[in-house]
Amino acid sequence: MNIETIRHSLAHIMAYAFQELHPGIKFGIGPAIDNGFYYDFSIQIPEEELPKIEKKMRELINQNIVFKKKLVSKQEAKKIFKKQPYKLELIAELQEKKASVYESGKFVDLCKGPHIKSTKEIKADSFKLTKVAGAYWRGDEKNPMLTRIYGVAFSIKKELDDYLKLQAEAEKRDHRVLGKKLDLFVFSDLVGKGLPLYTEKGSIIRRELENFVVNEEIKRGYKHVYTPDLAKVELYKVSGHYPYYKDTMYPIMKVDEDELILRPMTCPHHYQLYLSKQHSYKELPLRIAELAKQFRYEKSGELSGLMRTRMFCLADAHIICQKEKASEEINNVLDLIEFTASALGLEKDFRYRLSLGDRKDNKKYYKDDKAWSFAENVLRSILKKRNIPFFEAKKEAAFYGPKIDIQMKNFIGKEDTAFTVQYDFVGPKRFNLFYIDKNGVKKEPIVIHRSSIGAIERTIAFLLEKYAGALPLWLSPVQSWVIPIGSDHNKYAKKVYDELINNGVRAEIKNDNETVSKKIRNGQIQKIPYLLVVGDKEIKAKSVAVRKRGENNIETIKLDKFIENIKKEILNKI
Amino acid sequence: MNIETIRHSLAHIMAYAFQELHPGIKFGIGPAIDNGFYYDFSIQIPEEELPKIEKKMRELINQNIVFKKKLVSKQEAKKIFKKQPYKLELIAELQEKKASVYESGKFVDLCKGPHIKSTKEIKADSFKLTKVAGAYWRGDEKNPMLTRIYGVAFSIKKELDDYLKLQAEAEKRDHRVLGKKLDLFVFSDLVGKGLPLYTEKGSIIRRELENFVVNEEIKRGYKHVYTPDLAKVELYKVSGHYPYYKDTMYPIMKVDEDELILRPMTCPHHYQLYLSKQHSYKELPLRIAELAKQFRYEKSGELSGLMRTRMFCLADAHIICQKEKASEEINNVLDLIEFTASALGLEKDFRYRLSLGDRKDNKKYYKDDKAWSFAENVLRSILKKRNIPFFEAKKEAAFYGPKIDIQMKNFIGKEDTAFTVQYDFVGPKRFNLFYIDKNGVKKEPIVIHRSSIGAIERTIAFLLEKYAGALPLWLSPVQSWVIPIGSDHNKYAKKVYDELINNGVRAEIKNDNETVSKKIRNGQIQKIPYLLVVGDKEIKAKSVAVRKRGENNIETIKLDKFIENIKKEILNKI
Repeated sequence: MNIETIRHSLAHIMAYAFQELHPGIKFGIGPAIDNGFYYDFSIQIPEEELPKIEKKMRELINQNIVFKKKLVSKQEAKKIFKKQPYKLELIAELQEKKASVYESGKFVDLCKGPHIKSTKEIKADSFKLTKVAGAYWRGDEKNPMLTRIYGVAFSIKKELDDYLKLQAEAEKRDHRVLGKKLDLFVFSDLVGKGLPLYTEKGSIIRRELENFVVNEEIKRGYKHVYTPDLAKVELYKVSGHYPYYKDTMYPIMKVDEDELILRPMTCPHHYQLYLSKQHSYKELPLRIAELAKQFRYEKSGELSGLMRTRMFCLADAHIICQKEKASEEINNVLDLIEFTASALGLEKDFRYRLSLGDRKDNKKYYKDDKAWSFAENVLRSILKKRNIPFFEAKKEAAFYGPKIDIQMKNFIGKEDTAFTVQYDFVGPKRFNLFYIDKNGVKKEPIVIHRSSIGAIERTIAFLLEKYAGALPLWLSPVQSWVIPIGSDHNKYAKKVYDELINNGVRAEIKNDNETVSKKIRNGQIQKIPYLLVVGDKEIKAKSVAVRKRGENNIETIKLDKFIENIKKEILNKI
Repeated sequence: MNIETIRHSLAHIMAYAFQELHPGIKFGIGPAIDNGFYYDFSIQIPEEELPKIEKKMRELINQNIVFKKKLVSKQEAKKIFKKQPYKLELIAELQEKKASVYESGKFVDLCKGPHIKSTKEIKADSFKLTKVAGAYWRGDEKNPMLTRIYGVAFSIKKELDDYLKLQAEAEKRDHRVLGKKLDLFVFSDLVGKGLPLYTEKGSIIRRELENFVVNEEIKRGYKHVYTPDLAKVELYKVSGHYPYYKDTMYPIMKVDEDELILRPMTCPHHYQLYLSKQHSYKELPLRIAELAKQFRYEKSGELSGLMRTRMFCLADAHIICQKEKASEEINNVLDLIEFTASALGLEKDFRYRLSLGDRKDNKKYYKDDKAWSFAENVLRSILKKRNIPFFEAKKEAAFYGPKIDIQMKNFIGKEDTAFTVQYDFVGPKRFNLFYIDKNGVKKEPIVIHRSSIGAIERTIAFLLEKYAGALPLWLSPVQSWVIPIGSDHNKYAKKVYDELINNGVRAEIKNDNETVSKKIRNGQIQKIPYLLVVGDKEIKAKSVAVRKRGENNIETIKLDKFIENIKKEILNKI
């Protein structure tokens, strides 16, 4: 039996149960939804009553109630539902001549169906009522507020259990929830949707990531630049991006003679830098990198915390190089990506996708079959030679060439593109990029577009969810709390705190009027990597009692030694 | 005599000299301009001829030529200028009945005047012809191209000399010229006016400045955050900025239900962060800082290199504190500003301005006489107590309160506001900012707006001009060149280079086919702080021959020692 139909029928059964428990109640509507169903009722019900309703539903299911469909005249329907004002409203609006009515036991509903034949088809252990919420009748705030009861339902109990487990996990790991709990970022109605404001703590995570990627890229021969966040719309017409991106680009700003627009990508900006002087083959590959703000106007329904925003900061780069050097450079990029992913502990959460073009789609893809085949083969043979598992996906390429996408799975198994390496043979043509080769002849280079740790916003979201907020030490906004046992120990606590700060450790001192155990509990909730308790013993021994995050034992250790250890751990990004 | 009139008369004398030297030449127009004058002619003249023309002008001036004005009929004027097509064009368009004509010796010009009575009034040693340029007749590119000769003129020779000296200095120090010569930033027609693109080298300067200010501010208790570059226009209406700034704000972007706009300032964003939770007096002062991108649409005529752009990055902060703590906090801010200015070597180039409101101007300034007087007194007594010279300027305050402006002079003595500290008693009211005081009562804080090193773009411009490109070591994009004498020394040069890089020194190796002396010359032009030449002697002694920027002597020093020294110098920002 179709699970959708079962879910819909469960909504009826829930309403039937309500009718038994609360005679005289008024009914709204009760459809099947994703993973479950709901029904709207006229009375308020506390969440505590859900088990009672579930119990009644199971009783009804066990009675093998049959669902009978009847077509009746509107007149007759009005009679049946004479005490149900919401149903009467629906009947009045019916387009059809006859009203469709379902009888299941002593419950009768206005409903087009379809439904199961009888409750025999429902597994009584594979559904669960989950929550109570308010909902305006027909979603209109001028209408009365009804109470909506939600349930989830699956074909078998195992599926229900898996789903509930994942939900519990999600609650714990959802980066939006963690962002609030750990005070990392906020949104403001006055600033606008999809535009996060980072608090001090969230900003520390971001700055650490930014510094990490900039330093690592400079070490690997990238030239880090700053280019403007906006440009003339003409720039994106020359680049060829405009027709592909204009639906998600912000509107044009007309001022004086100029038509300006917020940039949706960085490549044409980097090409302008390249074009500002002539380049010899000796200067290639030229790796131009930037922490680049990019602006895309996503629909509000698609926004989600830091995972999908209307402005983001991409660790972006464009490598301009000889065609024959492409393979070597792409290998370097994959090395860098694997290095950064491993520094972030994400290396086990992704897989490679080779995203190909479509020779038949001349509208979406630049027409040059030979160039496509060459570039696709370059990428394929790199992946093969590196001996890493990958899968191929047709029609996932950019309009200017094929790419390797690094597909990251989040904790509920949903896959998103986290990083990408793209082979571009179109950009150089559009902008007349060239270099002078060994023989003094103008040659066309190719461009590799790549991100190393992706969009900072999304990377933070991935990290928060992966670690359920307990970020690696080097990324933790606060790395240590110093907790004096009593006010006698404040002075030593301050000394410990000063030493930590002077050694570049982000520390806080907790000397307010709370019990030590309360402070420890709070520190655990705040996912502080090291809680240092100090009292008489510690003062005497110049030590600290260390409670490491996630561990139960307490280790007392000389302060000097602790600082040496934590500095090493931070430096080595353990 | 009015110098304007003298300049205008000099244009006539120049034309007269031309007529003597090139009979039959056609004349365009010849007005007085800033600091001088020009005249347009129909023939091309090489720059080398300028001294000859100047000589002829001096001869004419010594003849004490008299300027005679005549009003003639248009008919007559057409006769006088029958061989001068450009003049005929002007006569045809004359609105007046009579044409005004000036005779000076054998030269006659169509001109409204006024002019000097005779060339006796001109000091023959206080003018100079400066340059030749092409100019379309009446500025229209469809018209013929004429040759424009420019001159400068002053009342006395001393003024001319000073002006010429300053111009020569300007040529050497102009940050726009240096930006090109040292490859620091470029502009692109496709990106747009006033939107600089930083090259790798310019980006290094910017990143060093940014890291410097962020680290220093965090050390001093600032909380560094990231907030979005755009927001709903409503935010700036609530803040009260919109009416004051809307002429320089970018246009509104309407998308879906939202009206978004690029931010012209950061304060309302920081207030939104403050408002995201409740604050106790214990948390104040709260110093929220950001490297904040800001967007103002300046008219294209006002744009100037990095000094005035259409998008800039301000080292911005807003200190939210108790009114009674304002004085202490403003003192801290001035300490910070003096510290950063001194780290940049700018401490001798500025003076303080106390910018006051105007009790009578209720349109420009928020009406609260008591609050204005209180705040102005706070600022005045801080400046007095610090015992630093300052001057007061009426009507220079922000609409929300008085401020202390740090006025920086550039090399030609032009003064600009580099940093600012503002006392704001209006923002907290508009946004209902509050804190809970000791007694559990809601209290209104005040806000101090401040910048520490100002807009990064402008600071870079100031620095380039102050140091004529020879930036302090820690800010130099390339800190050292390694120059092997011959190819035998390449291996050791590479070793020296590697040591430098591994020790965090920004170095380049110069092993291309040029003479050592050419490389040294180039290094001097590029303002490289340390040129290290290595040959047999240096290999043997594990040393480098050091040529320090600005010094002529060469010092040979052990490589280890050199690295130790340069690291110290970088760290200490010497």
